[in-house]
Amino acid sequence: MVYKKITLIGRSNESFDAAVDDAVDRAQATLDNVHWVEVQEMGVEIASVENREYQAEVEVAFQLENE
Amino acid sequence: MVYKKITLIGRSNESFDAAVDDAVDRAQATLDNVHWVEVQEMGVEIASVENREYQAEVEVAFQLENE
Amino acid sequence: MVYKKITLIGRSNESFDAAVDDAVDRAQATLDNVHWVEVQEMGVEIASVENREYQAEVEVAFQLENE
Amino acid sequence: MVYKKITLIGRSNESFDAAVDDAVDRAQATLDNVHWVEVQEMGVEIASVENREYQAEVEVAFQLENE
Amino acid sequence: MVYKKITLIGRSNESFDAAVDDAVDRAQATLDNVHWVEVQEMGVEIASVENREYQAEVEVAFQLENE
Amino acid sequence: MVYKKITLIGRSNESFDAAVDDAVDRAQATLDNVHWVEVQEMGVEIASVENREYQAEVEVAFQLENE
Amino acid sequence: MVYKKITLIGRSNESFDAAVDDAVDRAQATLDNVHWVEVQEMGVEIASVENREYQAEVEVAFQLENE
Amino acid sequence: MVYKKITLIGRSNESFDAAVDDAVDRAQATLDNVHWVEVQEMGVEIASVENREYQAEVEVAFQLENE
Amino acid sequence: MVYKKITLIGRSNESFDAAVDDAVDRAQATLDNVHWVEVQEMGVEIASVENREYQAEVEVAFQLENE
Amino acid sequence: MVYKKITLIGRSNESFDAAVDDAVDRAQATLDNVHWVEVQEMGVEIASVENREYQAEVEVAFQLENE
Amino acid sequence: MVYKKITLIGRSNESFDAAVDDAVDRAQATLDNVHWVEVQEMGVEIASVENREYQAEVEVAFQLENE
Amino acid sequence: MVYKKITLIGRSNESFDAAVDDAVDRAQATLDNVHWVEVQEMGVEIASVENREYQAEVEVAFQLENE
Repeated sequence: MVYKKITLIGRSNESFDAAVDDAVDRAQATLDNVHWVEVQEMGVEIASVENREYQAEVEVAFQLENE
Repeated sequence: MVYKKITLIGRSNESFDAAVDDAVDRAQATLDNVHWVEVQEMGVEIASVENREYQAEVEVAFQLENE
Repeated sequence: MVYKKITLIGRSNESFDAAVDDAVDRAQATLDNVHWVEVQEMGVEIASVENREYQAEVEVAFQLENE
Repeated sequence: MVYKKITLIGRSNESFDAAVDDAVDRAQATLDNVHWVEVQEMGVEIASVENREYQAEVEVAFQLENE
Repeated sequence: MVYKKITLIGRSNESFDAAVDDAVDRAQATLDNVHWVEVQEMGVEIASVENREYQAEVEVAFQLENE
Repeated sequence: MVYKKITLIGRSNESFDAAVDDAVDRAQATLDNVHWVEVQEMGVEIASVENREYQAEVEVAFQLENE
Repeated sequence: MVYKKITLIGRSNESFDAAVDDAVDRAQATLDNVHWVEVQEMGVEIASVENREYQAEVEVAFQLENE
Repeated sequence: MVYKKITLIGRSNESFDAAVDDAVDRAQATLDNVHWVEVQEMGVEIASVENREYQAEVEVAFQLENE
Repeated sequence: MVYKKITLIGRSNESFDAAVDDAVDRAQATLDNVHWVEVQEMGVEIASVENREYQAEVEVAFQLENE
Repeated sequence: MVYKKITLIGRSNESFDAAVDDAVDRAQATLDNVHWVEVQEMGVEIASVENREYQAEVEVAFQLENE
Repeated sequence: MVYKKITLIGRSNESFDAAVDDAVDRAQATLDNVHWVEVQEMGVEIASVENREYQAEVEVAFQLENE
Repeated sequence: MVYKKITLIGRSNESFDAAVDDAVDRAQATLDNVHWVEVQEMGVEIASVENREYQAEVEVAFQLENE
């Protein structure tokens, strides 16, 4: 019943909320039992995208299955 | 005229902005002279709620009355 | 091709997203080659404004011209 | 349904576990709806006590009643 | 015999020492058994005061009475 | 001979030592060549468990096999 | 109405208060609309000066003019 | 198009640059679309190796494939 | 009556409490007037020991004799 | 005789030492009286360059002329 | 020509400046070639002294003699 | 078998690697049983030296002899 945490960076052209949701969506699409998320960093990428890309680095905690 | 700071965690099913407002609303409902708020942490609770609950931990600074 | 970083605090009566955009708008109005932005702090000013002012302190990275 | 956090320092002549429990016991004796605790610092006081006093500074999160 | 810590911001037109003393004075006027104080931040407010206001954010530790 | 680090949260109804051991046990059950562990955070979950659940977030370092 | 922050290190042969004032004096001599100052670091230079030089690194926040 | 970050510790008998490259080499050998690397810690292991082993802990960011 | 602080790492095959005590024992065996101890880091060494070695890095504060 | 600090990010295809030197070179080409430099962050950009670009974020301290 | 740093806590009944000077005085009474001092923490001890004792924890850097 | 850690600042006219080695060389010349080194800060001194002096502040861990 140990939890594991992984680090994802969600991205959105709209908002920081959508960037966090992007990372949570990805986590829930590939992991069972996602329990909570902690926001680590927020930033905006400008030079390599058309307008502004909002980014949110998050730690995702999920429960590991028993062996 | 000393300030005091307390720590609250606001919660919302909608957004981080609403979670911060939730904490500020509560502070203003029970404290006079709230001056400013500093965001400390943001996270999303998933396992114990129906969808996603956005949470924002904030420090609320308010002016103490003179004795 | 060195980057330089400066620190701005954007402000908005609406949201943290708008506060970050306020700082990025200012940076892009006065600097060429803005590459990315890192959010450092978020807060809400209450005592000195009419309602609530959302503030976001950001570091703005831009590319310096060659001498 | 906002959470509030307060900071307590529990103390024990036995162990750090007992020092944390000391703080949690106190919190639960005076507060309803204690939800979780985060350990901030651990230390040992030596000069002013007979043997060694284990100390644990913790943040206690509890749910505020609605107004 | 648990300690509790609260956060105050003392203010002075004279010096940082006086700002810290301002917070300690307030703590001792309203709390029994103040044991120690830790300085967290120091700053100077300029725009909203006549000259310069020195501010010191401190954590005040005091011993709680037994229930 | 590169090391990799992952983040686990061990849990115990007994003590923080047991919570750390819980995470190390899990790591050693699924990974070869676990070298060391660094404790990052300790906390106690109260609201969603029967009594108190001690939790320890740790980084586990293990040696990767050569390709 | 964006704020900008710059980093200065004030210096004094007398005290830390005077070192902070030295930085604020310089800021106000060259910038309009200085709003507040945050102390980042304090130190004492000894080897390269006659007695002791008190130094204070501060962040100075000032309001930018509209374009 | 979410990014994921993992933590590796590269090792070299020669230099810190080579230790970072060691970690990047490993990442690129096993992951597609490595975008950037952030250095977290640097150290030297002495007791368990023949001479000195330079170590660099890095976070490696890479783009996840769509599901 | 100045205090000095040194950094020790205590080690135990049993528990973190015993690792902290190991460091305090050593400090008290060689230093007079040890006043308090602050825990900085906790970890577990696995690869180079038979089972698990609990380690605690602590800062030890003691009062210097007058010259 | 106040110091000012600015933040630059030097870049090199060769090494971190060269990346730091790149930032110092730029600072000395445009500023008089550069006194010292503090390294803040080091990283490697991979996706947008041909091979690997070593980057070093540094704070540059220089002495301001008297008014 | 390596520097070494040690940690001292100076104490004064008067002010933080005097507490820092107390530590520097002690360092210079027992060490040659003290170069600079960095302030780490400031606090006030109240419970175990008659009035208030200002304390300043500092790192003292001094040049080691060649072997 | 307790470890002790001390803080040294190595210096070199050539590179950061050489500055770290400078500190390790000094540690090994005067201490038995040096086990590992952790890099804390890196900087470049410019104003008081002829060209550039690379500096690396490191913590050196060594095993204490039994009493």
